[in-house]
Amino acid sequence: MSGNTFGRMFRVTTFGESHGGGLGVIIDGCPPGLPLGPEDIQPDLDRRKPGQGPLASARRETDVVTILSGVDAGVTLGTSIAMVFQNADARPKAYAELGGLFRPSHADFTYQAKYGRRASSGGGRASARETVARVAAGAVARKLLATHLGVEIVGWVAQVEDLCAGVEPSVTRAEVAANGLIQCPDAAMAARFVERIAKVRKDGDTVGGVIGCVARGVPPGLGDPVFDKLDATLAAAMISLPAAKGFESGSGFSGAQLRGSAHNDAFVPGPNGAVVTRTNRSGGIQGGISNGMPVTIRVAFKPVATHFKPQETVTEAGVATTFAAKGRHDPCVLPRAVVIVEAMMALCLCDAWLRQRGQVGERLV
Amino acid sequence: MSGNTFGRMFRVTTFGESHGGGLGVIIDGCPPGLPLGPEDIQPDLDRRKPGQGPLASARRETDVVTILSGVDAGVTLGTSIAMVFQNADARPKAYAELGGLFRPSHADFTYQAKYGRRASSGGGRASARETVARVAAGAVARKLLATHLGVEIVGWVAQVEDLCAGVEPSVTRAEVAANGLIQCPDAAMAARFVERIAKVRKDGDTVGGVIGCVARGVPPGLGDPVFDKLDATLAAAMISLPAAKGFESGSGFSGAQLRGSAHNDAFVPGPNGAVVTRTNRSGGIQGGISNGMPVTIRVAFKPVATHFKPQETVTEAGVATTFAAKGRHDPCVLPRAVVIVEAMMALCLCDAWLRQRGQVGERLV
Amino acid sequence: MSGNTFGRMFRVTTFGESHGGGLGVIIDGCPPGLPLGPEDIQPDLDRRKPGQGPLASARRETDVVTILSGVDAGVTLGTSIAMVFQNADARPKAYAELGGLFRPSHADFTYQAKYGRRASSGGGRASARETVARVAAGAVARKLLATHLGVEIVGWVAQVEDLCAGVEPSVTRAEVAANGLIQCPDAAMAARFVERIAKVRKDGDTVGGVIGCVARGVPPGLGDPVFDKLDATLAAAMISLPAAKGFESGSGFSGAQLRGSAHNDAFVPGPNGAVVTRTNRSGGIQGGISNGMPVTIRVAFKPVATHFKPQETVTEAGVATTFAAKGRHDPCVLPRAVVIVEAMMALCLCDAWLRQRGQVGERLV
Amino acid sequence: MSGNTFGRMFRVTTFGESHGGGLGVIIDGCPPGLPLGPEDIQPDLDRRKPGQGPLASARRETDVVTILSGVDAGVTLGTSIAMVFQNADARPKAYAELGGLFRPSHADFTYQAKYGRRASSGGGRASARETVARVAAGAVARKLLATHLGVEIVGWVAQVEDLCAGVEPSVTRAEVAANGLIQCPDAAMAARFVERIAKVRKDGDTVGGVIGCVARGVPPGLGDPVFDKLDATLAAAMISLPAAKGFESGSGFSGAQLRGSAHNDAFVPGPNGAVVTRTNRSGGIQGGISNGMPVTIRVAFKPVATHFKPQETVTEAGVATTFAAKGRHDPCVLPRAVVIVEAMMALCLCDAWLRQRGQVGERLV
Repeated sequence: MSGNTFGRMFRVTTFGESHGGGLGVIIDGCPPGLPLGPEDIQPDLDRRKPGQGPLASARRETDVVTILSGVDAGVTLGTSIAMVFQNADARPKAYAELGGLFRPSHADFTYQAKYGRRASSGGGRASARETVARVAAGAVARKLLATHLGVEIVGWVAQVEDLCAGVEPSVTRAEVAANGLIQCPDAAMAARFVERIAKVRKDGDTVGGVIGCVARGVPPGLGDPVFDKLDATLAAAMISLPAAKGFESGSGFSGAQLRGSAHNDAFVPGPNGAVVTRTNRSGGIQGGISNGMPVTIRVAFKPVATHFKPQETVTEAGVATTFAAKGRHDPCVLPRAVVIVEAMMALCLCDAWLRQRGQVGERLV
Repeated sequence: MSGNTFGRMFRVTTFGESHGGGLGVIIDGCPPGLPLGPEDIQPDLDRRKPGQGPLASARRETDVVTILSGVDAGVTLGTSIAMVFQNADARPKAYAELGGLFRPSHADFTYQAKYGRRASSGGGRASARETVARVAAGAVARKLLATHLGVEIVGWVAQVEDLCAGVEPSVTRAEVAANGLIQCPDAAMAARFVERIAKVRKDGDTVGGVIGCVARGVPPGLGDPVFDKLDATLAAAMISLPAAKGFESGSGFSGAQLRGSAHNDAFVPGPNGAVVTRTNRSGGIQGGISNGMPVTIRVAFKPVATHFKPQETVTEAGVATTFAAKGRHDPCVLPRAVVIVEAMMALCLCDAWLRQRGQVGERLV
Repeated sequence: MSGNTFGRMFRVTTFGESHGGGLGVIIDGCPPGLPLGPEDIQPDLDRRKPGQGPLASARRETDVVTILSGVDAGVTLGTSIAMVFQNADARPKAYAELGGLFRPSHADFTYQAKYGRRASSGGGRASARETVARVAAGAVARKLLATHLGVEIVGWVAQVEDLCAGVEPSVTRAEVAANGLIQCPDAAMAARFVERIAKVRKDGDTVGGVIGCVARGVPPGLGDPVFDKLDATLAAAMISLPAAKGFESGSGFSGAQLRGSAHNDAFVPGPNGAVVTRTNRSGGIQGGISNGMPVTIRVAFKPVATHFKPQETVTEAGVATTFAAKGRHDPCVLPRAVVIVEAMMALCLCDAWLRQRGQVGERLV
Repeated sequence: MSGNTFGRMFRVTTFGESHGGGLGVIIDGCPPGLPLGPEDIQPDLDRRKPGQGPLASARRETDVVTILSGVDAGVTLGTSIAMVFQNADARPKAYAELGGLFRPSHADFTYQAKYGRRASSGGGRASARETVARVAAGAVARKLLATHLGVEIVGWVAQVEDLCAGVEPSVTRAEVAANGLIQCPDAAMAARFVERIAKVRKDGDTVGGVIGCVARGVPPGLGDPVFDKLDATLAAAMISLPAAKGFESGSGFSGAQLRGSAHNDAFVPGPNGAVVTRTNRSGGIQGGISNGMPVTIRVAFKPVATHFKPQETVTEAGVATTFAAKGRHDPCVLPRAVVIVEAMMALCLCDAWLRQRGQVGERLV
């Protein structure tokens, strides 16, 4: 009830704090019989890991997964899977030194307002380190989807500040990886992204952007009517990410500028008796249910709140003061967030698939 | 599980189809002691009602609420509230005449793909008529929020096609209503919206746009960490609306273009010991929890799928054909959707408030 | 959240009050393609109906089902099914005449204590009339289970006051019906039950008893580990019935008196490679999961609270007074409750089946 | 969805296996500001611990709690609490030696049937060791209830095989502890319980019994109508315990033998304007909602499935064989299960309290 669980049939519960004794994730409802080991999960964790290059924070975190339960002889049992991560580099004092002030645009104030207290040693559950647990669960969902349905999920950095990349929905993960850690398949723009982020770092500032993501091979029929539409679930999943401020499905905000005659996706006969659409402004979802076309979304992230310029704020006692962050922080989290967006996409699709299989059976899935 | 329920503490379940024997809504968890009668609900229903002027469809629907249970002597009992609506103008044949083709960008194909069949007499649960039930529930939530917390929720049409209105977050409902059914407080732009929609209607086409919505007086502390963040819940609520394709909280996609030093909201001492922010790019939500500033969102709607130009499509048998809609349809649903967006905002806030009161008690709410 | 919903994949939400404008039930998650009409539901409603003979209350209620949505051309659509019932014989004054006193062992006091008010015109949601909605939903679940899995559910009156019937788990519904409305397949004991209830009625008193129920043909594998065990779900389902005070699965309380060597069910090879148990003290459930043997339960019901002898009680103002019920009331609800117990069994099994099919697929179901 | 979560507002998720890398529990929704440390939890864990005397198994398990998150400076933060336990004495081979046979009346067969595989190294999630997590969560709930509402929960061994103790609902925990590890306040019967269990152990057999539990100080108004009645929730909680076969609330099965005139609890004016009942056959719950009287339940446990006599069973291949357990096992788990029953009672009450506070506010709680 206080928010640590996502999904209905493929249920994910994350736990732990950024600077405590570790964190982890429990997956409830994973089908049995899936070959699963750390080697399926670690690559995604590595893509999320900080300290990987000049673009990223130099903090070291040991994002090494330990599978505690739910897997036996390398295969999922069907019972709940628990995975845990150590917090290797806990530095509680770094945060304590902030004293009682509220860092602007962090969750310090709202946690204090909500609970009447907050973690003394870091962001608590608001820390972006919580997403390590999401990525691990997402890797399991991704493997299930790939194994059972042939689904492929690819995300990329689509925009940094005002710079926009041109990316086709047929993009492969290899293309995304081709330009290094920046996670952008548009080589020219990838270089400009890197350059821009380096400049922002030098300025002691931070920068936001947009991540695009596509899921191909999603069968028609996933998502439920009314409130549990597939796009509604994706919206919640994405906006639940730290710093996410906007979500688009298919044509998104630009679709609002089109007329119906220009926006509608014509149905045409496809291969093997399938029905496909000539265009995909619907983003693979119509009436909240997948139609078999690629599921396409975009997620806007605000710039990281921690920059090095002096800022106005107040203390817990309500006294005006100023604050300037110290230490090392990411000027841009977009490249590391790509795998997190993919993970949330995988969790949504996996949950919708199991719900559909439960209600309708395997005939139609 | 198949999607007809929204919320955890203030739970709303809608039921019924557009062309069957009626539809309705059940509210589970409404606090007892709230004075409530049809007069609290009907005005919102009337704002949603079609056939109100030259902008709208001429179909008549009798959106008159009957409170079936949960209210006694004009006051809520605390037990579940059931409200029902008759379907006065059922015309099952109008849809049957479509034969077995899939209307482009409707849910015909995806329902068929999901369930192996679909309602013969209309959009079934995918019909936008389902939102009458949301509006009725939202009116109850709105009254609760106003009565207990002094929350005020105001929505407006912010954009039609490429035309954008200038609207301040201090806008009142009276200002929104001042320019007639178009629901836009910017008088000059309201006139242009009306003109544009009339032109689109004459073209036999349809048009989309953006709705803005603000909730003022929301206490700090609503929303839960991680997955049930207030903005994540709002995102799901809004994207679950028919034709919604995009969601923004606070600065949204434009925030992705700012640097951290320009985006952060400075905390400053406010009246009566409160902490306020100098700007509100966070949209009243930080770390997924309300901070006491106005909660601001924007929702993008694609153009209505039903227009009168010929379209390519296929039949259930997979044969290519063409389709041109007949009858009367809204060229633009934005004005009618304003109250629906407000209703979903109210449902999200009411649920978050009861969850917060349950966990933390009344001291901090 | 305030309790009107049961199940996860096959979700049932009931609504309405005993003396308001009607009541009903929504089924969310019903598989598509099930032939369904009132004729599948009415027979179970008729078994629950009062006023059927000398054993029962003479109040008339019109328990005629109307299917409002979710069924098209006699087949379920997969979208939510809404069924409604009129309240034909509302007599709000009958209850208003009670004035402000709390009827002993009714829910009058607890509803007042919980909500600070209560329905003026009857038991509100605490009325046993609410079970008409459960029976209707149970009939749908029963048909699904019979059609897809061949499950057969049979309940009977096993005990009235101190009189106990001898009933084998192989009992058929025809045998239960053979002795009339009393719903007991043990002919000799059925006659004594009738005689005893007639005597209790003459005394102006009421009497409780025990209902037994068996589900045959349940496949192995239904139920989930830890908290959602099949027997735990059945326990909640049964104890949620009005007047239910005890629940047993398999050997129940008598099993507590056996030693392990006498209680364990030996596994033996069964027909067609199946594994069966020589005895069935486990009641078809081991570790919370069905094992393929008949699922057997027993439910104890206290005597109806409304009898005609004078009783001590207090008024809302806390003043001691006496109360003696008037009008016509059932001296024993056991015969009418048999179909309600069966309905709750069906709802539990149907939900567990869809959950299992979702997680594990159809291979093993 | 596969069962590892209990509760709605005070949500408990347990994880881990008996012989893997450890297990734990997450509490979601715990109110902030509760002083909490291992010292609040360890005493209850110690009461559950095996190997405490001649009555119990000699296996050593290290049930020492580590609070991983959610507590800061000795006080709950309001965010989720994670507690973990090491598995000190893992002996995977002990189970592997069983080969592929199904131990009678264990969950071996049903897990295999459900998932198509099962843990090779023990009972997996079906192991009673999982209850260590429930006890830890229950200790938190118990402290919350005691601190905020003054609730006191006391359980005891009420019956062993056919021996029944006489215990009043006013029993204290000190009285229960007075007769040693047997957890029975009736000194004479406690001695006979000990004697009986010793004899059963000598016979290489096991024995079941009944646990009674009372919660005093529960405010009126907890529990929700229809499906989430307080007694229905308690029934699910108790029957979800390993080896539980029966549940009674208040008069239970014996109440089914009384007439209404003998069973009803007369209301009488109580101290300070309260309304109390002269008797308490309702067990503190009427219409599913607490009435302020002591909440009383009884839970029947079958004898432990692992005894040392030879038993018929089959192998995974379906071949008949015999099985005789080796090693050390409890002949009677009742004394250790007392604290587990108390824990589940605490979880149910705590969840119902927060739900009530959420919906109705603090005025009435």
